Amino acid sequence: MRILVINPNTSVEMTGAIDTISKKYARADTQIETVCSQEGPRSIESAYERDLVAQGVLGRVIEGNKRKFDAIVIACYGDPYLYSAREISEVPVLGIAESSMHVACLLGYKFSIVTIREQSRPRLEELVKRIGLESKCSSIRTTSMSPLDLQKDPAVTLKVLTEAARAAIKEDGAEVICLGCAGMAGFDKQMEEALQVPVLDGIICAVKLAEALFDYKLKQSKVKAFRKPEPKEFLGMARFRIVD
Amino acid sequence: MRILVINPNTSVEMTGAIDTISKKYARADTQIETVCSQEGPRSIESAYERDLVAQGVLGRVIEGNKRKFDAIVIACYGDPYLYSAREISEVPVLGIAESSMHVACLLGYKFSIVTIREQSRPRLEELVKRIGLESKCSSIRTTSMSPLDLQKDPAVTLKVLTEAARAAIKEDGAEVICLGCAGMAGFDKQMEEALQVPVLDGIICAVKLAEALFDYKLKQSKVKAFRKPEPKEFLGMARFRIVD
Amino acid sequence: MRILVINPNTSVEMTGAIDTISKKYARADTQIETVCSQEGPRSIESAYERDLVAQGVLGRVIEGNKRKFDAIVIACYGDPYLYSAREISEVPVLGIAESSMHVACLLGYKFSIVTIREQSRPRLEELVKRIGLESKCSSIRTTSMSPLDLQKDPAVTLKVLTEAARAAIKEDGAEVICLGCAGMAGFDKQMEEALQVPVLDGIICAVKLAEALFDYKLKQSKVKAFRKPEPKEFLGMARFRIVD
Amino acid sequence: MRILVINPNTSVEMTGAIDTISKKYARADTQIETVCSQEGPRSIESAYERDLVAQGVLGRVIEGNKRKFDAIVIACYGDPYLYSAREISEVPVLGIAESSMHVACLLGYKFSIVTIREQSRPRLEELVKRIGLESKCSSIRTTSMSPLDLQKDPAVTLKVLTEAARAAIKEDGAEVICLGCAGMAGFDKQMEEALQVPVLDGIICAVKLAEALFDYKLKQSKVKAFRKPEPKEFLGMARFRIVD
Amino acid sequence: MRILVINPNTSVEMTGAIDTISKKYARADTQIETVCSQEGPRSIESAYERDLVAQGVLGRVIEGNKRKFDAIVIACYGDPYLYSAREISEVPVLGIAESSMHVACLLGYKFSIVTIREQSRPRLEELVKRIGLESKCSSIRTTSMSPLDLQKDPAVTLKVLTEAARAAIKEDGAEVICLGCAGMAGFDKQMEEALQVPVLDGIICAVKLAEALFDYKLKQSKVKAFRKPEPKEFLGMARFRIVD
Amino acid sequence: MRILVINPNTSVEMTGAIDTISKKYARADTQIETVCSQEGPRSIESAYERDLVAQGVLGRVIEGNKRKFDAIVIACYGDPYLYSAREISEVPVLGIAESSMHVACLLGYKFSIVTIREQSRPRLEELVKRIGLESKCSSIRTTSMSPLDLQKDPAVTLKVLTEAARAAIKEDGAEVICLGCAGMAGFDKQMEEALQVPVLDGIICAVKLAEALFDYKLKQSKVKAFRKPEPKEFLGMARFRIVD
Repeated sequence: MRILVINPNTSVEMTGAIDTISKKYARADTQIETVCSQEGPRSIESAYERDLVAQGVLGRVIEGNKRKFDAIVIACYGDPYLYSAREISEVPVLGIAESSMHVACLLGYKFSIVTIREQSRPRLEELVKRIGLESKCSSIRTTSMSPLDLQKDPAVTLKVLTEAARAAIKEDGAEVICLGCAGMAGFDKQMEEALQVPVLDGIICAVKLAEALFDYKLKQSKVKAFRKPEPKEFLGMARFRIVD
Repeated sequence: MRILVINPNTSVEMTGAIDTISKKYARADTQIETVCSQEGPRSIESAYERDLVAQGVLGRVIEGNKRKFDAIVIACYGDPYLYSAREISEVPVLGIAESSMHVACLLGYKFSIVTIREQSRPRLEELVKRIGLESKCSSIRTTSMSPLDLQKDPAVTLKVLTEAARAAIKEDGAEVICLGCAGMAGFDKQMEEALQVPVLDGIICAVKLAEALFDYKLKQSKVKAFRKPEPKEFLGMARFRIVD
Repeated sequence: MRILVINPNTSVEMTGAIDTISKKYARADTQIETVCSQEGPRSIESAYERDLVAQGVLGRVIEGNKRKFDAIVIACYGDPYLYSAREISEVPVLGIAESSMHVACLLGYKFSIVTIREQSRPRLEELVKRIGLESKCSSIRTTSMSPLDLQKDPAVTLKVLTEAARAAIKEDGAEVICLGCAGMAGFDKQMEEALQVPVLDGIICAVKLAEALFDYKLKQSKVKAFRKPEPKEFLGMARFRIVD
Repeated sequence: MRILVINPNTSVEMTGAIDTISKKYARADTQIETVCSQEGPRSIESAYERDLVAQGVLGRVIEGNKRKFDAIVIACYGDPYLYSAREISEVPVLGIAESSMHVACLLGYKFSIVTIREQSRPRLEELVKRIGLESKCSSIRTTSMSPLDLQKDPAVTLKVLTEAARAAIKEDGAEVICLGCAGMAGFDKQMEEALQVPVLDGIICAVKLAEALFDYKLKQSKVKAFRKPEPKEFLGMARFRIVD
Repeated sequence: MRILVINPNTSVEMTGAIDTISKKYARADTQIETVCSQEGPRSIESAYERDLVAQGVLGRVIEGNKRKFDAIVIACYGDPYLYSAREISEVPVLGIAESSMHVACLLGYKFSIVTIREQSRPRLEELVKRIGLESKCSSIRTTSMSPLDLQKDPAVTLKVLTEAARAAIKEDGAEVICLGCAGMAGFDKQMEEALQVPVLDGIICAVKLAEALFDYKLKQSKVKAFRKPEPKEFLGMARFRIVD
Repeated sequence: MRILVINPNTSVEMTGAIDTISKKYARADTQIETVCSQEGPRSIESAYERDLVAQGVLGRVIEGNKRKFDAIVIACYGDPYLYSAREISEVPVLGIAESSMHVACLLGYKFSIVTIREQSRPRLEELVKRIGLESKCSSIRTTSMSPLDLQKDPAVTLKVLTEAARAAIKEDGAEVICLGCAGMAGFDKQMEEALQVPVLDGIICAVKLAEALFDYKLKQSKVKAFRKPEPKEFLGMARFRIVD
């Protein structure tokens, strides 16, 4: 099968790291291509930056459908534009946050999310609520890291994330850790070794779930929430117009 | 005070109707200017259409701040881009959905939302949850109307909305009705007369709350959720870059 | 418009402070009169003291309707007798707790309440739940203050309240502070200055919301929860009897 | 042991019916005395009527403590003044609504409340939430009956209540029925026979729980919610003043 | 009346302690017999150990019905097999956890559970949720004790439990303490004395509630959740087959 | 990889159907073996029947670990013994209910469960709550079918299940259907064709998720809820004793 992974920001480095991790546990017959937004911020740490890349992400989704990918993964731990992407996509679109949280529920009684700086908490809290798993989420642990710092000094990042995860396990009752930023690619198994609990990279989770859906020949429901928008008059924005 | 009302879609007719209603109960010393997105769909009935106008709305918010308005109202009953708008705004930004729901809570024990077609239910349900008032919302009643139809034959619209509201009152226990689309401007008082319960237009509610905040010299909190994004490297999108 | 503010306790000092604060941000054409209960405890710090003033408050509500006020505010941060007052009132009755909490939701993602001594927590917790905003309330912070102490040494009060608010912001994630006692009148703007987040006095919030409802010609719904009681045989209590 | 049952309204007939039912399943060594408010409405069907009897009920609670009863039952299915009564009482005070709901949970997976007219729904809904058992309450079924009608034509009442209960069982999934008004005394076992599910009279439940608490030598906690109010200056209301 | 108390584990010592405590506050005309499982673990500290005793417990329930007991109590603070026991029992079956929690709600605004080691928390959390009282449970406090240690050195146990309870009162807002293990029999009144809040032994609570149900002639509802299983072909397990 | 599928009941026919369906979408290199309980009821339709097979299921789990399977699936839509199985298993144990519900959340905004007779509702409701997805579950639709009838006349079963699913979609807002009984194996794709929404067989979902976990080298967390029980004295039950 062929999966398109979309990095919503414009960081080439992060796109590369996402590409590498998304292939790491993919099956031999799964082909993955990773792209990013063509304009916009280098990283996403605010609602503002997230909202600016809507067209960037949705343009890639349209393209992914035209190029007949079998599934699309949006690789940002805020699951941005998931609903709108599903509306216009013929093939399943998966978010990395929802993917990691659903997998976490299979592995432990409660999971915690270890993420970037404190200002992202409200958005993550609302996301957990929207996904519906607030009763399974033991805590959101923020750190001092911003997305673009994560891959700068891997030893420091590993230490910071492991410490936050350890606190979540000890103080909050976490039994599984979800890495709460696409930029945390590559730290999962080292942390798992140190912490002795499952540590989940959402990108890998989304790829594995995309494969599972593909095998079972499943597509997303289009009867209500993800129903295709009707053709409609647009002012400009030619490439985004829906046609029958 | 000066309020900027932003209609996220590109319908000139709807922008006119919003402008009229927003001024109807405004105080004598309140000046209101209504603008719409400069490109995008003529109406918003899907997550996709909503997400496409992010830049349209946020561009208007930036402009509103430059032009020193005292408050900004986003006139779409999905409260799109409220959080991102608040991040970049020096002055209060209000959504019409949240405004109508908070006012509704002052007027009755439970409120229902009467809105457009059934596919909007999931988004509205999530919005009510995000606002935190799910225990006060007796129901969301969808109808056969799409936004651009609402002002076509006012007598028909009035009948359809009044019937849906009556069902909400009788069967769901609604004591207050919120009109769940910016395009429903102008039907509130006629429905109120017919139904004998308060009927709320969210645009008016937002304008009145903006005046109240202004008088009490209140601004939105900027310490966490609505904290100003940091300056950051962008690819393109010059007009959206944050500078110190 | 004319607003009647009712202080449920019998403290003349507190009634004066409430009167002053209620007028501070009122519009030029708003007339406010503040009254208190004619018998009962000097302050309300228990369910018992609250329940004893039912007749005191309801008597004032009857009087306020007879004297044709346009709105009534019950100035005690437990919103006592709100539902019963609404049942017998032709004009809107607002509580200061609900008013401050709804306004707080417009200004931040989460609010905390800074209040008097620990024994009031259960009542406040139940109130937040009844209002329906438990998911938006980051914490209730109690202090060492009792209502009658609050105005004794303003410098001490300011320090105690500011410290509790600061802890709520730092440890609980509060973005807005609600002052949880009518006796805290006058500390809002000084605290706001010190804390750099909005600080809300419920009395002012209620007055501003009363003005907004008046302008938009809104009354409370009378179809179910606040329906007028039917005339009924009473033993004694002549002045409280409902007549057609 | 000695139990004081307080009927908050002033209906002598209802007080008699309550007295009879409260003794029906009491143990041989349990003595029960039933009293009512000395002034106020003949029945309670609104928040207003409920709030007017605060002094009536609390005066009886003070008296019950002076006369050294071992427990007090407030016989109105709104559990009015329960918290304030507990604050000033040395002995357990039980509500009939909470008593019936807790017993119902021992007998079935879900219970429904069959009660008087529709306007009482908001108060009952809030009560169930306050008690914390909303997830166990399958429905509140209102009827055409008002409290003073219940004992007028017992055959009619039995029919109306049984039909409402049957609907709750069939349509809402109720497995146990709680009779939602003190005036429904005496219908429980006939309904149980007809419906083949447990039917609970709250007065009897409260009496039986009072006996259980007495045997196990339990009193209510006085450390926070039900802490004794401090002595305080009162204007008038001599008989309600707290002294050390 | 006659009550059968079933200790699900195989500890003879614990069975003795349970028998003693269950009789301590029983009425003079209540006869109690305590039995334990005939095979299985000596104590229950895991889901695994609990699940292994299903046949042990259900066999005793069948026996209890044959021997015409009037009520059955399952004396393990996980309320194991409560639903299945009720399905096959003609007489009420009570769990000690649910019994203590419902009684706790009559005595305070919030209760905490003081229990054995940390690994039991997930099971207890789910139990509280299933009972429906999560909003009334201030905390679950685990300790260093395992069930078989509890009666070894009563002075140590008393100290450990009292300290955990004191922390629950001070830090979590508990007003009532539930002893969260059948092996804690006998510590309730000493702790109550030390802590000055009600301390509940679930076994005693269950016995007292069984007496209350008996007096009021109540049985468990058999219309849905606890409906009797239909006769069905079994492979082996002769003594567990349902016959008409 | 090698997966052991455990059918908790003793029906040889159902075991065969489960074996067939579990292999249908498995990957070429996945080997599946399906076993059932060695004694107990032929089907599970009550808590009683479920609880009787605890030893049957747990014995199979022990065996599966000894025989070095890579994952274990418990094929009953009540997810019985999932927690205890995880405690004693070195390899992941998956339930078919949780598996189908988590997959459903990836495919639609809300899912409904179509299941057997009405008496199973309480158990399913509690299961959905335990899994934490009650806000995503639009309804549980029961039918007239019992497990052993399901494969008798496939045309009838297909009709009954499709009708129930259609009602869930139309009236309850379901966008995805979960088949709520292991005995419904084989109806998924026919229903999907008829209904035009995803229809999920939990056995297949569990197999696909087991493969995904295996690829990503994930095991269940053993730090708290699923911690291995300590060695302990047993009375009898030799084969179930835990040894170091």
